[in-house]
Amino acid sequence: MADLDLTDLHGALTDRALNSMNFLNEVAQHYPDAISLAAGRPAEEFYAVEDLHSYLDTFCAYLRDELGYDEAAVRRTVFQYGRTKGIVHRLVARNLLADEGITVDPEALVVTVGCQEAMVLALRALRKDSNDVLLAVAPTYVGITGAARLLDLPVLPVAGGNDGIDLEDLVAVMKSARAEGLRPRACYVMPDFANPSGLSLDLETRQRLLEIAAAEDLLLLEDNPYGLFPAEGVERLPTLKALDTNRRVIYLGSFAKTALPGARVGYVVADQLVAHPDGTTTLLADELSKIKSMLTVNTSAIGQAIIGGKLLQHDCSLIEANRREQATYATNLKALTDGLTDRFPDGEVTWNVPMGGFFLVVTVPFPVDDTLLAKSAQDYGVLWTPMSHFYDKPVQALRLSCSSVRPEEITPALDRLAALIRDQL
Amino acid sequence: MADLDLTDLHGALTDRALNSMNFLNEVAQHYPDAISLAAGRPAEEFYAVEDLHSYLDTFCAYLRDELGYDEAAVRRTVFQYGRTKGIVHRLVARNLLADEGITVDPEALVVTVGCQEAMVLALRALRKDSNDVLLAVAPTYVGITGAARLLDLPVLPVAGGNDGIDLEDLVAVMKSARAEGLRPRACYVMPDFANPSGLSLDLETRQRLLEIAAAEDLLLLEDNPYGLFPAEGVERLPTLKALDTNRRVIYLGSFAKTALPGARVGYVVADQLVAHPDGTTTLLADELSKIKSMLTVNTSAIGQAIIGGKLLQHDCSLIEANRREQATYATNLKALTDGLTDRFPDGEVTWNVPMGGFFLVVTVPFPVDDTLLAKSAQDYGVLWTPMSHFYDKPVQALRLSCSSVRPEEITPALDRLAALIRDQL
Repeated sequence: MADLDLTDLHGALTDRALNSMNFLNEVAQHYPDAISLAAGRPAEEFYAVEDLHSYLDTFCAYLRDELGYDEAAVRRTVFQYGRTKGIVHRLVARNLLADEGITVDPEALVVTVGCQEAMVLALRALRKDSNDVLLAVAPTYVGITGAARLLDLPVLPVAGGNDGIDLEDLVAVMKSARAEGLRPRACYVMPDFANPSGLSLDLETRQRLLEIAAAEDLLLLEDNPYGLFPAEGVERLPTLKALDTNRRVIYLGSFAKTALPGARVGYVVADQLVAHPDGTTTLLADELSKIKSMLTVNTSAIGQAIIGGKLLQHDCSLIEANRREQATYATNLKALTDGLTDRFPDGEVTWNVPMGGFFLVVTVPFPVDDTLLAKSAQDYGVLWTPMSHFYDKPVQALRLSCSSVRPEEITPALDRLAALIRDQL
Repeated sequence: MADLDLTDLHGALTDRALNSMNFLNEVAQHYPDAISLAAGRPAEEFYAVEDLHSYLDTFCAYLRDELGYDEAAVRRTVFQYGRTKGIVHRLVARNLLADEGITVDPEALVVTVGCQEAMVLALRALRKDSNDVLLAVAPTYVGITGAARLLDLPVLPVAGGNDGIDLEDLVAVMKSARAEGLRPRACYVMPDFANPSGLSLDLETRQRLLEIAAAEDLLLLEDNPYGLFPAEGVERLPTLKALDTNRRVIYLGSFAKTALPGARVGYVVADQLVAHPDGTTTLLADELSKIKSMLTVNTSAIGQAIIGGKLLQHDCSLIEANRREQATYATNLKALTDGLTDRFPDGEVTWNVPMGGFFLVVTVPFPVDDTLLAKSAQDYGVLWTPMSHFYDKPVQALRLSCSSVRPEEITPALDRLAALIRDQL
């Protein structure tokens, strides 16, 4: 006999967003021999366990030599409970300056358990009551949708269009939300090589988006996990945060793709000023830190030491540190788009050609759902992700990932995908 | 000009529970020369950075030798995204069997970012709507109160009395809550050497509590961070989970005190069966895992490897591994209670004599608040914790901690405390 009834538990548990990742993982586990163009994990060929030892030693040396800690303080820093906002904040600030041209007060940073916790902290602070809503550019990363569901925060989609965001739709969605008495607290956007669309905002769109945010008193939640991975010959654009002159942007950072996922270290830049009833002012980062103290207490000091050590070994710049990875992703992405061109010359099947990142979207003239994915896995031996997982509606498109497939697998994977698509046409 | 107004952010940010830890940390930072009988952190004298390297290597060897992983799989396990429910679940299950006599299916475990995340997962799942409430034995650990605040879940105090829990009050609180249309989802309790009271439930009380939980269809959230630290000559009692024959207990586990806080690894045992509308059944652990995937994705694989390595180096039992720590805490606790006896022979000031753990409570005949703490820090050079932080009301008592004070500091600390108390009398 059951002890609990699912319908008596929090509603998020029956929500598609929370079950989507589980479903996709299950399909992958069920068909281990299928080639995966689904997984968005980083390439793992360059990982070496020795590096973990070396990163840890480098970080401890930094505590000693640069911060002047004695041995007891070094041990305390990596073993004990620590600063809620983190212990690698100065190194993250140096990294933001080196790689993104963002100048940030280390006190305005909260180091988090991956970027996912950063999202939860921001949404928890911003969601005061049931009138609050989050806007998010569609298609939307399932992690932000899921975090919003956990906090009972409705997500209103803003059209992404072909340019990454439809600014007219953004204004229209805000206007209509406000007319209904709702309070749009922020708009979630991934301006560089977005997951899942692969799209990037051009410089003019970034500037106009910031103008709209200022005019409408809207915060922007900028998520940037893939920015260091442009395609070959593509020049990186400044992030929204680098262009942000009046603290409109809360910047969500990740080291999962640029260092390693296993440390679970991300961060949020929250330099907004918060007025208190007593007339004092705090940084939003300090308010997020209070929430963090009740969510995870602090981010693993050991995980932070690993990331800190990697940063230190590369002068706090991860661009050069990721040359091999960037080249791998760029080569794979080109192999995918070239391979699609070879196989679908007639225009019935289309796809975008991203400027970088891990993902591209293939549009087909037939329904694409979980049943088709299961069929693809079982009968054709190739995995991908139905784009419907990133909308709240059926979509005739699928996402391909270039990040964790081996180069020699790309031709057979595309052959299999092409066979599936032809059989569906 | 400020960008945001605190009153527009989530209400938890103005709640005492979330500001309490910050306040206490600030006092400690402001008076670094004061002797601290406040901090509840574990003793750090036995930590050694080399051990981290050794634990990591031991865990990798386990992946190779016991689980049969090749080198690529070893690297993948510690570097990549991983199983949401964790990668040390089998080792934690062995530890629970070895140290607590609890037999648990490793699939019913979720490895979490410290025990704090375990609390958040359980409360998030159980809080469906605004009728739901949590019961908690008073005085209550501020971490559970804070987690409940983040989730807009009211906490109803159950009297702790002198025995650790007043069972009649528990039944009365439940009855009156239900009469008001509220739904008590669970009762939070720390049966062994509780923080902050220092009290433990005797065996009979444990059994009666389980009977009441069964009769009232109430879940118990059992938190057990200090169970391995009995005072000298005290025999450990079985946990509620060890006595639980019908899945009434959700067990919250921590490695912060028995291994190290810096790994941020805890866990929850959630073996309850959840009925789904389609007639299927899942473990509550699987539902918590869905929530975790949107909160922190997974617990740091590197943090887990450190804890896994420590467990493996001690045959998955942490009792022997903590002999030195247990002896240190027991010696300090005895020094505190003996020292109080020497200084306050006349009964005007009283205290409890805990059976173990980190904490004891001193009751005094005058108000004890944050102002008095600040005065104690500045004028007397000794830190402690006002018990009012663990209630929602003024209390004439203070908490002393024996865990991170050096033995030679105890006499001066008590002398200073006695001076403060005498001056107040």
